[in-house]
Amino acid sequence: MGKDVVKVGLLGLGTVGSGVMKILQMNGEQVRGRAGINIEVKKILVRNKQKARDVKVDPSLLTTKAAEILQDPEIDVVIELIGGLDAREYVEEALRRKKYVITANKDLMATAGASLLRLARDNGCNIYYEASVGGGIPLIRPLKHSLGANRILRLAGIINGTTNYILTRMDLEGLEFTEALTEAQARGFAEQDPTNDLEGKDAAYKLCILASLAFNSHIDFDTVHMEGISNLNRRDLLYARELGFTIKLLAIGEEMPEGLALRVHPALVPLTHPLAGVLFENNALYVEGNAVGEVMFYGPGAGSMPTGSSVVADLIDVVRGINHQVENGVMEIDFLDKKVVPLEELNSAFYLRLQAQDQPGVFAGLANAFSEEMVSLDMIIQKRSREGKAEIVLVTHVEKEKNFNAALARIQKFPGIGAINSVYRVIPK
Amino acid sequence: MGKDVVKVGLLGLGTVGSGVMKILQMNGEQVRGRAGINIEVKKILVRNKQKARDVKVDPSLLTTKAAEILQDPEIDVVIELIGGLDAREYVEEALRRKKYVITANKDLMATAGASLLRLARDNGCNIYYEASVGGGIPLIRPLKHSLGANRILRLAGIINGTTNYILTRMDLEGLEFTEALTEAQARGFAEQDPTNDLEGKDAAYKLCILASLAFNSHIDFDTVHMEGISNLNRRDLLYARELGFTIKLLAIGEEMPEGLALRVHPALVPLTHPLAGVLFENNALYVEGNAVGEVMFYGPGAGSMPTGSSVVADLIDVVRGINHQVENGVMEIDFLDKKVVPLEELNSAFYLRLQAQDQPGVFAGLANAFSEEMVSLDMIIQKRSREGKAEIVLVTHVEKEKNFNAALARIQKFPGIGAINSVYRVIPK
Repeated sequence: MGKDVVKVGLLGLGTVGSGVMKILQMNGEQVRGRAGINIEVKKILVRNKQKARDVKVDPSLLTTKAAEILQDPEIDVVIELIGGLDAREYVEEALRRKKYVITANKDLMATAGASLLRLARDNGCNIYYEASVGGGIPLIRPLKHSLGANRILRLAGIINGTTNYILTRMDLEGLEFTEALTEAQARGFAEQDPTNDLEGKDAAYKLCILASLAFNSHIDFDTVHMEGISNLNRRDLLYARELGFTIKLLAIGEEMPEGLALRVHPALVPLTHPLAGVLFENNALYVEGNAVGEVMFYGPGAGSMPTGSSVVADLIDVVRGINHQVENGVMEIDFLDKKVVPLEELNSAFYLRLQAQDQPGVFAGLANAFSEEMVSLDMIIQKRSREGKAEIVLVTHVEKEKNFNAALARIQKFPGIGAINSVYRVIPK
Repeated sequence: MGKDVVKVGLLGLGTVGSGVMKILQMNGEQVRGRAGINIEVKKILVRNKQKARDVKVDPSLLTTKAAEILQDPEIDVVIELIGGLDAREYVEEALRRKKYVITANKDLMATAGASLLRLARDNGCNIYYEASVGGGIPLIRPLKHSLGANRILRLAGIINGTTNYILTRMDLEGLEFTEALTEAQARGFAEQDPTNDLEGKDAAYKLCILASLAFNSHIDFDTVHMEGISNLNRRDLLYARELGFTIKLLAIGEEMPEGLALRVHPALVPLTHPLAGVLFENNALYVEGNAVGEVMFYGPGAGSMPTGSSVVADLIDVVRGINHQVENGVMEIDFLDKKVVPLEELNSAFYLRLQAQDQPGVFAGLANAFSEEMVSLDMIIQKRSREGKAEIVLVTHVEKEKNFNAALARIQKFPGIGAINSVYRVIPK
């Protein structure tokens, strides 16, 4: 216990950085008690020293030169809250200089996590990234420690707040997609360019981080299948509810005998499933382990204070370790390179909504197409038709994606079938 | 790194002990990898060596003498899975002999946790108890570490699987209490004598453990207010649903400026609240922190493998620490003695169901009684009356318990009021 204070450098004082500073001010005594030693934020890297901020910070702490933090031998911990891939060089320099790194950077951990963890190990330090996924929800530490006795079989997460907010407003209040998106933007739950959120890219990044840890494997971002929610129609939410489901954008990772399956797509979730109750901007991760069974972690997936809460939790662990002159090691070092199974080899139940001519033989043709591809039907809704057109909704049993796609291809060729409006995967009840 | 194996003694090979052994067999390689060193179960204390068990164990490991474990200097870790307060002397002896202890014993941790933690610290070791609350759900570690940057404002948990199973069957399937209890017993979710579960004692024990940690205070079991579910009528679940609620047995701990409030009682929970979706034997803990906001942990609250999963997670942490010759300290050592606020000083919304004569003036009298005690009403249901009797259901706004009780006392004296059937607290929407 050679020190009486651990000195910290902060890279970035934006949304999350302000949260971190506020928490250290508000709960400083408790943080100190848990860490066992004083923590001093010595320097904070900002772009503009004059900018007005919603947290009080001694102006003499601010610097526009990263080197003042990275090259200061007194600073033992670097908290990287700049975000984006440009932060990589800072993180690498900090690790090479044997500083502990705490980061909230999902892009960086998703694409370079394994390499950074190796670099940390080689330098006898470590990199902590609880805040990179799920904002304030404890996810990384539970996967590493609390569920450490389990082989993880499956992850299913609602890990993008923007899309969950939109889907909740559409489902509970009957908004159309564009109305819900506008609301989300007005309330700060969606960015002005929401493409990365709507198309599932943000969730796919986070899935890479979680799946690496859960399945102990390198995950290449390009192997994650992505489908977004931009084409989702309110009608599908209405039918889903009639069948006992809601629709959520899920990030799913599974380990099967053939390999890993990794995908982000909208799916029908049974109303009795705990993920169905995850509303508005909240996030949740459902985990299936071979010992524990099914557990779920729920909470705010973003925001200044929640994400700050995760960063400061990491800081307490790091400082506690430094105080006890302990480094109990990087746990995620021996990632394997597990095979990723192509989507069409997977099994799913499917929801299908289509328009058909209300004439003899159309429904029989539909039924035959499924039957010929060995796809069996679980639920069917056909309402009274209008102007000679019927809307049909079908839910299949769990079948090979390949077979379902083959049936769909047959159906599209029928003269009596109008439009295939929607196709979604279904989480079985 | 002086050792090449850490030796463990197991006290008890019942439900949880069998789960622990199965997990070590099934996931042994992974556990070894995470712990960084081999783990050997050297001895297992049992009552009867000949008893048939549903896990394969080398018979030479079994002993009926606790001393063979507690006094073996080769054994560094003692896992106590006997349960009950009689186990205390074993745990104390193990700690005095500087062995790490892992326990799933909620009675012991609830009533003697602080003293055992002190004993552990004084002997330079530690006691781990993730499995004592919430079965397989990570709760202790998240409260200690992941939420360490937060001042915890409030805990609300469904932490008794028996009562939640019963309430779920009553709510979703319309069973009466006694039918649901019989079903729970038949399926192994309720004991033959279910008193401790039904009356809230089991949940109160667990609340003591969680609240000590969350609020950093000694908690005296006798200060926890308890109400059970034995008198719950299906009609209340039906009315609750009509009003947008379900009924759950909640364990609630709060820190207020005046002190702590600790209670276990049935409560109306809004259907949109994440706790409302916790069904059947599952458990969940909802935590409100002053930085993170609201998070929830959900999963199986009991059972051989889930509880074993928590025990083995603790074992990995302990062995990892031994392997790195690290002890980063007992964190829960400086418990304060915070004041507990009497129930009647608390504020709650209330649900009230009563029978009244269907005659002029009765409802006005009811309304006046509330008004005179400054209790305002939020929702009212009165269905068409039968045989001159009306059933009235009222929900109040959040008011002082004292005032509500005073209003209730007035109402009970009215000649036109028949029976007060039910009174429950309500978690506001």
